[in-house]
Amino acid sequence: MSLVAKLMDGDRLAFARLLTQIENEELVGLDCLSDLYPHTGRAHIVGVTGAPGTGKSTLVNRLVLHMRSVEGGKEAERETIAVVAVDPSSPFSGGAILGDRIRMRDLAGDPGVFIRSMASRGALGGLARATAGVVQALDAVGFDIILIETVGAGQAEVDIARTAHTTVVVSAPGMGDEVQAIKAGILEIADILVVNKADIHGADNTLRVLRTTLQMARPTREGRGYLIRDEVEADGVMWDPPVLATVATQGEGIPELSREIARHRSHLRDSSEWRVREGERIRSEMELLLRDHLTARFMTRQPDGRFEEALERVLTRKLSPRQAITALLEGEDEWHAKSEGKK
Amino acid sequence: MSLVAKLMDGDRLAFARLLTQIENEELVGLDCLSDLYPHTGRAHIVGVTGAPGTGKSTLVNRLVLHMRSVEGGKEAERETIAVVAVDPSSPFSGGAILGDRIRMRDLAGDPGVFIRSMASRGALGGLARATAGVVQALDAVGFDIILIETVGAGQAEVDIARTAHTTVVVSAPGMGDEVQAIKAGILEIADILVVNKADIHGADNTLRVLRTTLQMARPTREGRGYLIRDEVEADGVMWDPPVLATVATQGEGIPELSREIARHRSHLRDSSEWRVREGERIRSEMELLLRDHLTARFMTRQPDGRFEEALERVLTRKLSPRQAITALLEGEDEWHAKSEGKK
Repeated sequence: MSLVAKLMDGDRLAFARLLTQIENEELVGLDCLSDLYPHTGRAHIVGVTGAPGTGKSTLVNRLVLHMRSVEGGKEAERETIAVVAVDPSSPFSGGAILGDRIRMRDLAGDPGVFIRSMASRGALGGLARATAGVVQALDAVGFDIILIETVGAGQAEVDIARTAHTTVVVSAPGMGDEVQAIKAGILEIADILVVNKADIHGADNTLRVLRTTLQMARPTREGRGYLIRDEVEADGVMWDPPVLATVATQGEGIPELSREIARHRSHLRDSSEWRVREGERIRSEMELLLRDHLTARFMTRQPDGRFEEALERVLTRKLSPRQAITALLEGEDEWHAKSEGKK
Repeated sequence: MSLVAKLMDGDRLAFARLLTQIENEELVGLDCLSDLYPHTGRAHIVGVTGAPGTGKSTLVNRLVLHMRSVEGGKEAERETIAVVAVDPSSPFSGGAILGDRIRMRDLAGDPGVFIRSMASRGALGGLARATAGVVQALDAVGFDIILIETVGAGQAEVDIARTAHTTVVVSAPGMGDEVQAIKAGILEIADILVVNKADIHGADNTLRVLRTTLQMARPTREGRGYLIRDEVEADGVMWDPPVLATVATQGEGIPELSREIARHRSHLRDSSEWRVREGERIRSEMELLLRDHLTARFMTRQPDGRFEEALERVLTRKLSPRQAITALLEGEDEWHAKSEGKK
C-alpha cells in the first residue's frame, strides 16, 4: 500500500508524521504533499481571526463541539472537522503545545475532529507556507471543514486568512479606540463578524458601531473578487456580512455562527464566488511560495561571504541598502552569464 | 542648493514630498534616499508594539509630550522626536489620516516633533519596506529619537519592531487567556515591558505574571545577539527587561518609561550591543528588500501569461503549487540561457 493510499485510508500515525515533515519542510513530506494535491479542493476552509483577548480559541472549541453534535445526525452524516491553530508564540515558550492540551480536553475521543497547532517558524514566511501545506494535507485526506484560527490582526494573519474560503473576524467589547483600527483593516476581509463576550458592558455599542460602519462604508473588497455595492446588487449575488453576538463560554450564539458559516458556503457554491476565491487562495499561496523559493535559490547561488560583505558596506554607510541589493542582483546575473559560458 | 542639502537644512516641504515618494516607491524618492543614507546611523530607533486595545497611541503621545517638556531644558538641548505610526487599516477606511488628526491636536505647534502615519500598502512586504525607508529619511535629516508604533502582534509587526534598537512591548490587564500567547511570542523581542491601564482591576496580576515569566524563562533571544543568561552575566552586559506600570491617560509612569528608554540607549552604546543590533537591523532590512526585488525581477522577466497559466494548472489540480513554482523557476533559468545565447 503506497503512502498516499495509506493516508487516504485514514492512517493517523502516517498522517501525523507527514504533517511534521511538512512543518519541517523535509523533502519527503513536500513530495508527498504534491502527490496528495490532486485530492484537494473539497474541504470548506474557514479562517477565524481577530485580536488577542477576544476569546477566539474558546469560540472555535465551542463551534467544533456544536458542529459535531448536531441532533439526529448519524456518524457517517456528520462532517469531519480539522482545526489548525496558528500561534505566533515561539517554540521556546511552548505556547502552542499548551494550547493543544487545553483543546484536547474538550474534544478528545472524537475521531471526527483533528487538531494541529502551528508555532511560529524561524524563517520569514515559514509559518504561512507551513500552514498552507498542512491545510492541503487535511483537505486531501478528506476533512469536510478546516478551521484555521490565527491570533492577531497583523499582515501575516491576514495573509493566512486569505487562504480561506470564508473568513470570520472576532472582536470583543471594550477594546478601546483601537477597535476603530481593527475594524478598518479587517472589514474588508470579513465574511462574518462576531462580537464575542457579548455579555460584557459595552457590547451593544460595539455591535452597533460595526453594523453602522458596514452599512455606511461597504468596502469594495478589492482583490477578493467583490464588486462595488451597486454592481453586486445588480448581479444578484451579494453577500451581506452578518454581525453576530456570541458568549462562547456559555455557548450562546454558537448555533447561529455555525449556520452562517454553512450559509456562506452555500452562497459561494451557488454563485461564481467559490471559483473566484479558489483562484485567489491559490494565487496568494503561489506568490508566497515563489518569494520564498526565489530567496532560497538566490542565497544558494551567492558566493560565500558575498552577502555578508554587502551587509558590512551598508553597516559602514558606504552603500545604501537598495544600492547593495542592486549590486547583489547584478552579481547574480553575472553568475548566470559565467555558468552559461562554461557550457 | 541640492535636494539633499535642502533636506539636511530642514526644508519641511521638500521632506514631506520625499516621504510621499518613498511611500509610493517612486524612483526619484528612492534615489534621494540612497543619497541621504550616509547621514543615517545617529538616531535612537524605538519600536512600540502590542495588541490593539492596550492604549499604545495614547502612551506614545504622552511619551512624546514628556520627552519634549523636560524641565529646564532649552530648545537646542531638547531632543527632536519623530513618530512613525504604522496602521494596518486600509487607505479606503482612512484610519491613518484620522489617527494623524487626533495626534496633531496634542502635539501641534512643536517644531521638534514630526508625525507620520503609514497605511498598509497593497503589495506584500510593502509596508515594512516603506516604513524602513521613512525611518532612514528621518534619521538622515537629524531626528534624535524615532518612535515606530505598530498595531498588532503579528509577524509583520515583529518584523517592523526588529528594525528598532529598543523595543517596548505594551500590554494591558484583562486581555484574557491569550495574554499567555502574546507574552510568549513577544517576550523575546521586548527590551522594556509596559502594562498600561494599570488602574484597571487585574493589573497587579498581569504585572506579577509578566515578571515571574521573565524570571523563570529568560529567553535566549536568539537572533538578537543575546547570549544565554549565564554567559550574559559573565560578560557583565546583561539587560534585564524592566516591567513598568503606566496609566497613559493620566500620564502616570510616563517619566519612568522615558527614563528606561534612555537607559537602554546608554546600555546599548556602552556595550557592544549597539553595533550588534545595528547589524541585525540592517540584515533584516536587506532580507526584506532582497525578497521583494527578487520577486519583482522574476515577474518582469516572465513571458506574458506564463504565471497565469501555471496558476490555472494548479487550480485544476494538474500541478501542485510547489511543482508549478519549480517549473516557473526552471523557466527563468532557461530565460537566462537564451538571453546569453543572443549576446
